[in-house]
Amino acid sequence: MAKFALSQTAQQLKRSIMRDLMPLATSPDILSMAGGLPATDCLPVARLQECLEAVLHRDGARALQYGPPYMPLRQWIAEYMRQKGVACQPENIFITNGAQQGLSILSRLFADPGDAAVIEAVTFTGVQQVATGRRLSIRTVPTNLDSGVDVDALDGALRALPRPKFAILIPNFHNPLGVTISLPKREQIAELAQQYNVPIIEDDPYSPLRFTGSPVPPLASLDRSSNIIYVGSFSKMLAPGVRMGWIVAPEALADRITVLRESIDLESSQLLQRAVSEFLQRGYLDESLRHLNRVNRERCSVLLTALQQELAPIDASWTVPKGGLFCWVTLPESIDAAEHFRAAVAQKVAYIPGNAFAVEGGYRNTLRLNFSNISAEHIREAVRRLASVLGSGPAT
Amino acid sequence: MAKFALSQTAQQLKRSIMRDLMPLATSPDILSMAGGLPATDCLPVARLQECLEAVLHRDGARALQYGPPYMPLRQWIAEYMRQKGVACQPENIFITNGAQQGLSILSRLFADPGDAAVIEAVTFTGVQQVATGRRLSIRTVPTNLDSGVDVDALDGALRALPRPKFAILIPNFHNPLGVTISLPKREQIAELAQQYNVPIIEDDPYSPLRFTGSPVPPLASLDRSSNIIYVGSFSKMLAPGVRMGWIVAPEALADRITVLRESIDLESSQLLQRAVSEFLQRGYLDESLRHLNRVNRERCSVLLTALQQELAPIDASWTVPKGGLFCWVTLPESIDAAEHFRAAVAQKVAYIPGNAFAVEGGYRNTLRLNFSNISAEHIREAVRRLASVLGSGPAT
Repeated sequence: MAKFALSQTAQQLKRSIMRDLMPLATSPDILSMAGGLPATDCLPVARLQECLEAVLHRDGARALQYGPPYMPLRQWIAEYMRQKGVACQPENIFITNGAQQGLSILSRLFADPGDAAVIEAVTFTGVQQVATGRRLSIRTVPTNLDSGVDVDALDGALRALPRPKFAILIPNFHNPLGVTISLPKREQIAELAQQYNVPIIEDDPYSPLRFTGSPVPPLASLDRSSNIIYVGSFSKMLAPGVRMGWIVAPEALADRITVLRESIDLESSQLLQRAVSEFLQRGYLDESLRHLNRVNRERCSVLLTALQQELAPIDASWTVPKGGLFCWVTLPESIDAAEHFRAAVAQKVAYIPGNAFAVEGGYRNTLRLNFSNISAEHIREAVRRLASVLGSGPAT
Repeated sequence: MAKFALSQTAQQLKRSIMRDLMPLATSPDILSMAGGLPATDCLPVARLQECLEAVLHRDGARALQYGPPYMPLRQWIAEYMRQKGVACQPENIFITNGAQQGLSILSRLFADPGDAAVIEAVTFTGVQQVATGRRLSIRTVPTNLDSGVDVDALDGALRALPRPKFAILIPNFHNPLGVTISLPKREQIAELAQQYNVPIIEDDPYSPLRFTGSPVPPLASLDRSSNIIYVGSFSKMLAPGVRMGWIVAPEALADRITVLRESIDLESSQLLQRAVSEFLQRGYLDESLRHLNRVNRERCSVLLTALQQELAPIDASWTVPKGGLFCWVTLPESIDAAEHFRAAVAQKVAYIPGNAFAVEGGYRNTLRLNFSNISAEHIREAVRRLASVLGSGPAT
């Protein structure tokens, strides 16, 4: 039996606790707020089936063949981005298999192992994987739970030499924090990108999932130096199973993104590109998003009420999301959410300990709750169970 | 406007001439033998549509949600591989978005930039991209046009220190050479993998496309040391548009492959995994492959006859494929296929100059012809045009 000599990259990649917990998220007897899944009951099955049929009827075998990135999809996305204030043409749109592939491509495009990169101290495990998991030298910046990333810290991290090769920020309904970067901060961030000439990757799968308040312009719309690279996704706004997202990047990067993508997996499915494009051209997205966001708003509201009733008594606090999928709970320092996790699962309730998102550890008194893929009734019961576990003293 | 500082990896990746020529392959007035596409007219549109409908009807939103790799698909592939003599269980099967992603994952799993790797001196550009394009130190080995890779050279390349981290071989209907590695050589290669404890990646998208002669057992079926890692694909045997392939790897690698894949693009489409699985469970593959290979055999036969009539007079020679998509033509040394390419396109015929597949250059008097995605009638005319261009003296 071989003993495999693995690359340093492979050794460096930590298993994400989040994915290890996924089986729990799908176990039927556990009330799970652990996953990052959009509401299964809101996914537009009939509409997508209709679009798949239409595409195969119209395009036949071309929908199953190799082909260049599907231009009508690039055109739709370019128009969508322009409506958000981002100056772009279809040639600036690069189709990916979701936002994670966008991040992975851009990390490899800008940085070699050993290069410096900036990420938030608490961030989505996928962001960590394309940074620490690629053996980059990481500088973390803290994030304010009301207004988003700490801009002074970001300034320091971008200014320090050697200059970092990129930064990744999640501007809207942050995963896991639920917070949105304020407009004044966005303007400052765009200035920093220009001042230090460092690409800032705007990882934005969640902005279409706003269910209250007004949209804040994307960082990329405030860009004056072509240094903000936008990453979007249909996973949360349409369906994860279409594995479809995009990068908006300057044409100067087009050749390199194209050849790097080709080396990774050639291209995205022609069939799925065309079916998603059909879904969008037929105007089904608005209807689908309205439904999704109505459901998310209701579930989030139920969650916030339940937290107030059940967790306020133990002096917990939490972010109040205006969209997205997540709420971030901060417990008293004495309560360790990671240590209570086993007891919680025994009580048939699941969450993600905040520690799993902490690049440099810590944050042990925090946890992430997903409110999108669990019914209102189950949310109430889940939070009751959570309170009973967390309020019962030290984990045993 | 930003001047982007790109990673060394991004700088190293050469645009593949093959993909740059793809627009020509789809231009309607050019008789193209340049692409690597399976026959568009053989893709099973109606059957796949039926499977997509069945899956969405049966599984509903689960087919559009995130989820673990689809177990029935892993089970089918494991059984398929066992029938080829490869000892494996569903737990050894890792779903990918096609063979290119399999190669890309394994390259990152085994090697860091600067590490040594072994590839054939003439090989598919995608193999080059996951080796030279990752800044690995490359050792090339020549390939015999009758029996496949030169095993003595492979022995030397594996023996040399520092030990290479992996080798990639294309055992069946080689791209671009069309050759299949003989059984005696396969046995020697399996011994070398054991002797030097170096993983050998068996890149095998083409073996199901055999249209004459008997199958040769996969390298992985001869493996006695768990050092042969098999990479398969549905792109050529079913349809490129499903973007589906697999890795067969020892369970010792399971965690690392899983987490690396997750960092790259999370997972393959649940919808496409389930639709492909349905296609296979319903037994549609045999029918589809029989049709495809009947067409390929006829087209290859027409090509070989046309080459004999048109290119024998200028002292060209060529491989005689028993399957796959490609025929490799060697011209007299004085004829430079790359230099004649523009003239060929002006004459409305396209091929890939062999030089594009040569890792260290050379092979300028060679070219690759695809016979799968062009009608028999067009093949005859294309070869006539080719002969007129190549036989007309030095390119101008």
